[in-house]
Formats: sequence, structure tokens, C-alpha cells
Amino acid sequence: MSDVAVGLDVGGTKALALLVSRDGEILDELRSSTPHDAQEPAGVATAKVLVSQIETLAQRHGLDPVTLPIGIGMPGMVRRDGRLAFAPNLHSASGASFPELLHDLLGACAVHMENDGNCAALAEFAWGAGQGIDNFVMVTLGTGIGGGIIANGELVRGQNGFGGEIGHMAVEARGALCGCGGQGCWERYASGGGLARLTTQWASEGRLPTLTSRRGSAANVSGEDVTRAASEGLDEAVALMNEVAWWLARGLANLVAILDTGHFVIGGGLSVAADLLLPPARDYLADLVFGYAKRPQIVVTTSRLTVHAGALGAAKVALDRQP
Amino acid sequence: MSDVAVGLDVGGTKALALLVSRDGEILDELRSSTPHDAQEPAGVATAKVLVSQIETLAQRHGLDPVTLPIGIGMPGMVRRDGRLAFAPNLHSASGASFPELLHDLLGACAVHMENDGNCAALAEFAWGAGQGIDNFVMVTLGTGIGGGIIANGELVRGQNGFGGEIGHMAVEARGALCGCGGQGCWERYASGGGLARLTTQWASEGRLPTLTSRRGSAANVSGEDVTRAASEGLDEAVALMNEVAWWLARGLANLVAILDTGHFVIGGGLSVAADLLLPPARDYLADLVFGYAKRPQIVVTTSRLTVHAGALGAAKVALDRQP
Repeated sequence: MSDVAVGLDVGGTKALALLVSRDGEILDELRSSTPHDAQEPAGVATAKVLVSQIETLAQRHGLDPVTLPIGIGMPGMVRRDGRLAFAPNLHSASGASFPELLHDLLGACAVHMENDGNCAALAEFAWGAGQGIDNFVMVTLGTGIGGGIIANGELVRGQNGFGGEIGHMAVEARGALCGCGGQGCWERYASGGGLARLTTQWASEGRLPTLTSRRGSAANVSGEDVTRAASEGLDEAVALMNEVAWWLARGLANLVAILDTGHFVIGGGLSVAADLLLPPARDYLADLVFGYAKRPQIVVTTSRLTVHAGALGAAKVALDRQP
Repeated sequence: MSDVAVGLDVGGTKALALLVSRDGEILDELRSSTPHDAQEPAGVATAKVLVSQIETLAQRHGLDPVTLPIGIGMPGMVRRDGRLAFAPNLHSASGASFPELLHDLLGACAVHMENDGNCAALAEFAWGAGQGIDNFVMVTLGTGIGGGIIANGELVRGQNGFGGEIGHMAVEARGALCGCGGQGCWERYASGGGLARLTTQWASEGRLPTLTSRRGSAANVSGEDVTRAASEGLDEAVALMNEVAWWLARGLANLVAILDTGHFVIGGGLSVAADLLLPPARDYLADLVFGYAKRPQIVVTTSRLTVHAGALGAAKVALDRQP
């Protein structure tokens, strides 16, 4: 039984590999770009990168890759058997079975797959901002919204392993189109992508006059411009961030009604704007949560493990599933 | 340890009491009206009715009420300690602690409280349409929408015991007002109350001309008129039922994304219209569910325990919690 594991967090642009001890300590760390090679069969290019990361970490620490538990967090729908059923942000790997690919490239190793949002939830539950909280939801605000649900002290994987795709809960039934093919998905309103979409819309409607004048045209105004200007107190930018915060609270309130979650851990790239988003979102919850006054204070906090959460959780899965 | 329990299902208009064996057999049954007496302290009038039901069942079967496990299913937010924190449809009992009230009236009895939708889910899980399904959602379509979530083979009670209030998930962020104080709640679109609301709206917009002419005026057309006419094949009524079915599917699809539920059990009063609602709702799921094509067929079936589900589940809670 190994006391260390490799945790891999594979995103649309890069892959993070960590060597992790049983108590969640990060012993080593590697970053690589994620290839998008459509010439090779699904996932092969990605698998080669991961194998190289695993071999590098093993070599540096005098470990045998074949006895090292390996966990992989992937964006998209990861089946319980390890196949990546559907990955809108990692098309070249969609449909691939990474346990099989890694076996072919590395030999008889123990590979465990999990959705990246679920990995982050497991890591925060074990070692982060959800430690000891038996009912909480991890919400990762990136280009989209991912997440993972802990209920009764366990991850909610659901029937197939696809649980926690909270970003594709519709909050506006006939609302904005989403990359998933749906309409009105939460992530079109309250993620980095949602901020970008609302920025374009507000700018084209003349509701961001100062930023439009600074950037020369409405089309040039970006979500980053809004975040920066809001942190400097520009009213029009603060108003837009409040709009995003309202949508964030709208989705959180839905999760409170469904799951009676009293605790949210917010991670992902947009969480750098936490100071702008979370205080108004907490205020909006009072209006949006069913039976708000009859509940204890709802906690909305930021991730403690930040960019490492996904890879740490992947390592945790691998450590926990050792025979 | 008792082999039988009393299960009580308390609704806004009536209370159903069952004597239930350990294997879910209904040994006896009683119905009473639910009083709405604002003269007495919260819940006292209701508690008196329940005590009378318990005493009647006990007497008929030669049982001692004090050694009988008693389970109560209540609409609204039932705290883990048994207090009814908030009950929009049972105002006279809101805030009451039924375990305390029953102790005062009946002596030292063992009383266990649970939300009625959660009770129905537990009963269908043990003895009904969810038997052996470790991940499913019970959806009760009545005046509103209640429900209960089974994940990883366990009821999701959440932080306070308020889990499963799926009817108050907003599906239209700035949509129809709800009795809970919110906007756009699912139950304003896909319940009996939602059907009534949409009927009024469609009639006033001239979209139910035949029914309006039959009933003399738009204001006279009811949800029941629509259901009846739809079952007879009247196009305008079928169109409205399809609209309700679309909203039903919209909410179900959200729950699939969040929980990866592959199985829904539909109960409640509106489930009498299941033949009109469920076939179109199943079709709409194909468009509305995130990653639909990558999932096994999603099952949407009707409750097997029908009107008994809540009281059976309340009895199950009482049987399971015996010391």
C-alpha cells in the first residue's frame, strides 16, 4: 500500500501533476500544456503527456510508476468505469478510456478517473475549506461552472458518475445559448464566460460608457476590464459585477432548496474576483433562498486549496481506492 | 422493539394515518380533516387530531400507544430535531414541535418527524417504484412540487433536514411569483398550481377559445377542464398540457445535471394526469438534459404507493429509528 499518489488535473489548456502524501501534503509539482492533436486516436496525445509527467515525478523520487496509485481529474462526463464519455472543452480526448491508454503506455498501473469538479470537492472535504462539513457544494467558477456535491459525508457521483454538473442547471428556461446545446445554463450567467457574455451585451447596449471610451469601442471591452475597473470602484463595472453576483446567488439558492446545503466553497479562475462577487452574492441570498430566515447563516467561502484542489482530489481518489 | 408503527401524513386539508408492518404492509387506515384553528397555540389543534388517530388505531389492534413507534410526515421545512420550522400550506402548525405536543397529550411516546416528500421517497425506495435504486428523485406534483432525493442509497436531508424542496428551484429567474416569496419557482410551472396559473394565462390570452366558450368566460376555465379536455383530445388543451410537460422536463433535466439521477418517481395529485404529462415530458428530456446521448435511458415512472407513500414513509422512519 503506497503512502503517496500522483494526482493529475487535466484542463483544456494545461495539465497539473502533483505527488501527494496520504495527509494531503504536496511533495512535488509539474505543469504541461494539454495537446489538442486530432491526428491521433482520442486521448492518445493527452495520455502521452500524462505518462511523461508520471514518469518524471516517479524518477525524481525514486518511485516505481507501476506501484504508484494514479488519479486523474478530467473536465466533462467521466463514467464510473473511467471512460471520458463527453468533454466539450477537451474534444480530442472525448470518448477515450484513460485507464486503458495508460496501461498501454506505462504498463500495469492503477489508474482512477474522476470528474475535475468532483475531485476538487473531495480535496476540499479532506484537506480544505470543506473539512468536516458533511453537506457542502464545491463551485468552480472558470470559463464555465463545475462542481461537486458532498451529501451525508459522501460525494454524489450519481447513476453514471456524472453528478455535480451544476453549471448546466438552467436558471432561465429560454435564456442564453450554452456550448452544451442547452439554453439558460447557470454558467452562461455566473462564470468567467458569463461575465464575458454580459460584458459584450452591456457594452453593446451602451451600459459601459467609460470602459467603451477607454478601450476605443464596445467590442474591445473584456471581462478582465470590468473586473479591474470594478476593483477600482468604477460604478458601471461594479453594477455589472453585482449582476454576475446576483446570478451566482440565484444558482446557489437553487442548490440550497434542493440539497439544503449550508456551506459553499468557491474555486476556479473567477474566484480571484471573490472580493467583488461574494459579498453582494451573500446579500442576495437573503432574497433568493427558500425559507432563508428559518435557516442558520449560509456560508459562502473561497477554496483553500485553490489551483491545486483538482489534482489533490485526484490523488485522494487514487489513495482511497488502493486495494 | 415493535414490528408495527403508525405513519401519519399531514396535509393542508387532511391527515392520513396508517398502521404499518415492518415489511410495508398496511394493516389499517384512517383519514381525518386537518383543522386550521388559529385560536390555539401553533400545532395544538393538529396534534389533537393526530393523537386521536393514533389512539383509535392502537385501540383497534390492542396496542399500547406509548410503545408504538410514531412517524409524522409534514409539508414544509421539518428540522432534524422535529420542529416544523416553516409550513406555508399549514400555517396554524408552523413553528410547532410535534414531538413535544404529542408527549404532552399522549405521554412518553416515540415520535419522529420528517418532511412529507422525503417520507414518500423513503417509502418508494423501500417498497415502491424506487426499490433497489440507489440514486433517484421522488417528485410529488400537487398544488406545489415536493420531493425527496435518494443519493448513494441514502436520503439527502441536508444540513438542517430541509433537503428535497425541489419545487423551489427557480427555472425562470425573474419569472412567476411564488407563495414562498420567490420568483420563477419550478412549482409555478409544472404542478397542479402551475397548470391552474397557465390555464388562467392562456385563457386570458385567447389561447383556449373552445374551453372559454364552453365555460362561458375565460375566468371560468380551470386546470381540471384542461386535463379533461386534453384526455378527450382537444388540441388547445393538449397544447397546454404539453407546455406543463415541457416545464416538468425542464426541472427534471436540472436534477439530472446536478445529481446524475437516472430515475424519477412521480407522485402527487397531478400524477392522475400522468398519461398526458409523462410521454411528452420524456421526449422533451432529449433536448433538455446535459449530455443526454451519453447517458442510459432516463426512467420517469409513476409512484407505486400513490396516496399512501407519505404515511408509509413516515412509518418507515419510525421503524428504522427504534432504539
